[in-house]
Amino acid sequence: MAAAKFDMWVKHLDDLVKEEWRQITETNPLARYVRQNKVDKELYYVLISQNYHYTKHNARNQALVGVRSLDAPDAYTSFCFHHAHEETGHENMALHDLRTLNLGHKDLVPMTPETETFIAYVYWVASTGSPFRRLGYSFWAESVYVHIDGLLAKIKADLALAPKQMTFFVAHSAIDEEHAVEVRKILELCPEEQWPDVENVMLTTIRLTGSLLTSVYNYLNRQN
Amino acid sequence: MAAAKFDMWVKHLDDLVKEEWRQITETNPLARYVRQNKVDKELYYVLISQNYHYTKHNARNQALVGVRSLDAPDAYTSFCFHHAHEETGHENMALHDLRTLNLGHKDLVPMTPETETFIAYVYWVASTGSPFRRLGYSFWAESVYVHIDGLLAKIKADLALAPKQMTFFVAHSAIDEEHAVEVRKILELCPEEQWPDVENVMLTTIRLTGSLLTSVYNYLNRQN
Amino acid sequence: MAAAKFDMWVKHLDDLVKEEWRQITETNPLARYVRQNKVDKELYYVLISQNYHYTKHNARNQALVGVRSLDAPDAYTSFCFHHAHEETGHENMALHDLRTLNLGHKDLVPMTPETETFIAYVYWVASTGSPFRRLGYSFWAESVYVHIDGLLAKIKADLALAPKQMTFFVAHSAIDEEHAVEVRKILELCPEEQWPDVENVMLTTIRLTGSLLTSVYNYLNRQN
Amino acid sequence: MAAAKFDMWVKHLDDLVKEEWRQITETNPLARYVRQNKVDKELYYVLISQNYHYTKHNARNQALVGVRSLDAPDAYTSFCFHHAHEETGHENMALHDLRTLNLGHKDLVPMTPETETFIAYVYWVASTGSPFRRLGYSFWAESVYVHIDGLLAKIKADLALAPKQMTFFVAHSAIDEEHAVEVRKILELCPEEQWPDVENVMLTTIRLTGSLLTSVYNYLNRQN
Repeated sequence: MAAAKFDMWVKHLDDLVKEEWRQITETNPLARYVRQNKVDKELYYVLISQNYHYTKHNARNQALVGVRSLDAPDAYTSFCFHHAHEETGHENMALHDLRTLNLGHKDLVPMTPETETFIAYVYWVASTGSPFRRLGYSFWAESVYVHIDGLLAKIKADLALAPKQMTFFVAHSAIDEEHAVEVRKILELCPEEQWPDVENVMLTTIRLTGSLLTSVYNYLNRQN
Repeated sequence: MAAAKFDMWVKHLDDLVKEEWRQITETNPLARYVRQNKVDKELYYVLISQNYHYTKHNARNQALVGVRSLDAPDAYTSFCFHHAHEETGHENMALHDLRTLNLGHKDLVPMTPETETFIAYVYWVASTGSPFRRLGYSFWAESVYVHIDGLLAKIKADLALAPKQMTFFVAHSAIDEEHAVEVRKILELCPEEQWPDVENVMLTTIRLTGSLLTSVYNYLNRQN
Repeated sequence: MAAAKFDMWVKHLDDLVKEEWRQITETNPLARYVRQNKVDKELYYVLISQNYHYTKHNARNQALVGVRSLDAPDAYTSFCFHHAHEETGHENMALHDLRTLNLGHKDLVPMTPETETFIAYVYWVASTGSPFRRLGYSFWAESVYVHIDGLLAKIKADLALAPKQMTFFVAHSAIDEEHAVEVRKILELCPEEQWPDVENVMLTTIRLTGSLLTSVYNYLNRQN
Repeated sequence: MAAAKFDMWVKHLDDLVKEEWRQITETNPLARYVRQNKVDKELYYVLISQNYHYTKHNARNQALVGVRSLDAPDAYTSFCFHHAHEETGHENMALHDLRTLNLGHKDLVPMTPETETFIAYVYWVASTGSPFRRLGYSFWAESVYVHIDGLLAKIKADLALAPKQMTFFVAHSAIDEEHAVEVRKILELCPEEQWPDVENVMLTTIRLTGSLLTSVYNYLNRQN
């Protein structure tokens, strides 16, 4: 019974994620631009820069959940540190991909306010409230590729990118697949009364990611 | 040359640890009491309780180093999270051992001020100063058993404990052996100008552990 | 010369604030609704609830700047603690105003994700980056009333509120006036290379406040 | 009745403080040295250096209590920020006094491990457990001068110091007198079940201060 209820909830979360990302891919200005125009390197450069910035914090705020939660189940604390371990340095994939573009850019594009807001929010989630609620972020982030596949394919085609120039998105995706399974499993430890917190964080992190994508679009427009 | 200098430094650290622990085992009131008297369960109970308290924080303050150090080498950040992952829940070994004593005690002995001071200091080290300096604690802690072997053997004999009643000390020791090797390896990443910080933390954590042991002795004396 | 440059910058900030708030009051859905409809108590209740939530954190994240900035000028550290002292408990004005509405509501409306994002961002600003950058928030927040006067007057008229039912906005405004002067004065200590950080935080906190207002509008719509 | 019980507890705390400081002034190696020898500038220099180090953190860890305690009474939160405000920069008195010694020392003596342990412990107390427990530190620290008067008089006489060369101890003492009264008053807000935490912190901070004084003695001995 409890398992059935949990499965129903996870199905509900999956539906929400799907719908949120459908909206983003349809209506987000960056997503629309990518669909309707030939993407240039500059766009990929700005996008990857923003990915770099928040990814540098992902392992850290993941571990922070374990650091501050003295009363969480050991299995969950252990999960936090384990995933943090496995995600350390993933931002370097973004850096690697940037370098293959031969843009001659010395530095990354600075983070946009929207990227910084996203980072701030995930740290806040990691340090306050239900220790399980950061799983709302992992829930969709580790399996986001299915939702943005179309956009990535378009970018890849327009820029004639080889897979080794898209390690952040491609290699990352393989690594995350296993994580996504583990996230669902560990979520079973979350007490039912904290499910709304997880759901809230799930929706909010997706929407803040949408804002981050919009900020990439706005950044590009301001440059031109 | 650099490697030779590093090896010399590590040898120097090893010598300091040996000397500090020689002093503790010789002059610390708890150590002397254990050597000179038949140990009873009460002593083991109070000692294990204090071990439980600080061990519950070890994985957490280990991970905290990785959380707060944005500029540390990835290999070190990753090490922090990996060790935190492997040490999560080790305090339960202390709990397990306590239960086999059939003392009928419901709760652990509360932490002594000296145990709390030790915990406070390690968190402080983890959150400020050189990110490498917490390795000064790991340096000796992961291989402490060689120094306290005699005392543990005496306790074991006096209480006729089976190995499965000493999992915190025995099983832990096996796990830590590998960690000790890894600690020395990762220490190579520490810039030479931060060596004094590591050494300082090494000595201070040993001495605070000495105070913790004294507090166990004082606690027992106040009860009788 | 330096003073003249500073004055020009502050004038520039003032212009930005004015323009941002002009946009909000014109285009924000809540602002438009207030202008075009007779406001009911429910709207005031939801709005005041959100004010309560973030205001409860304002003194704290203000003090946090002083806590974490070991190298900031003493005058600024002192300013942070002094303002935190003076703003402690201001959220109770919001609570007081709510009670005069006789809505029979037992609890506050929970914070919206947008309110929580705002809180998260201000803590992040307070704990990372230039210690001066949180002044970007104080810069406009302590003198916001001039920008929202029209909206407040409309709410007051529609609900026939007495001044003592608007203490959060009215009394607060008097207190903040002096703070606003002090904020400009202390800002002179901010090194010029950190001005962009202050400006960035100023704009971002205004925009996140705009999102907070929109979330009030959306919350009300979901209820009906 | 409750007031009488509180008064009795405070009297009990006063007695404990008196006894602890009697022990320190009698048996602490630095205190004994000061009593039995002509003090030189070097001793004052090392002592004042250590005072500088922990005093630089006092306002900050005082404010931290207010930052992290969302549920404490407003009066207490306000007290924390107010005292932090008033104590900001007091470490500069130590610096000022040092300069009058014309020692030609460019830098302060680095903090000893005992000074750092003291700092670490007070931050830990400020960030965990009962929000009131840091008052256990303020309880004695703001009125310590009565206990160390004899030692300070001896140092003053030996070095022929003018009062303006002892601002840290003398001027500070006047400021702290009022604080001491306020500490006792605010302590009334502390729930009775948290009294043991306050008492524990009171005793531990005195003892760690004793260790700090010993570390000054040891530091001087190592130099000679």
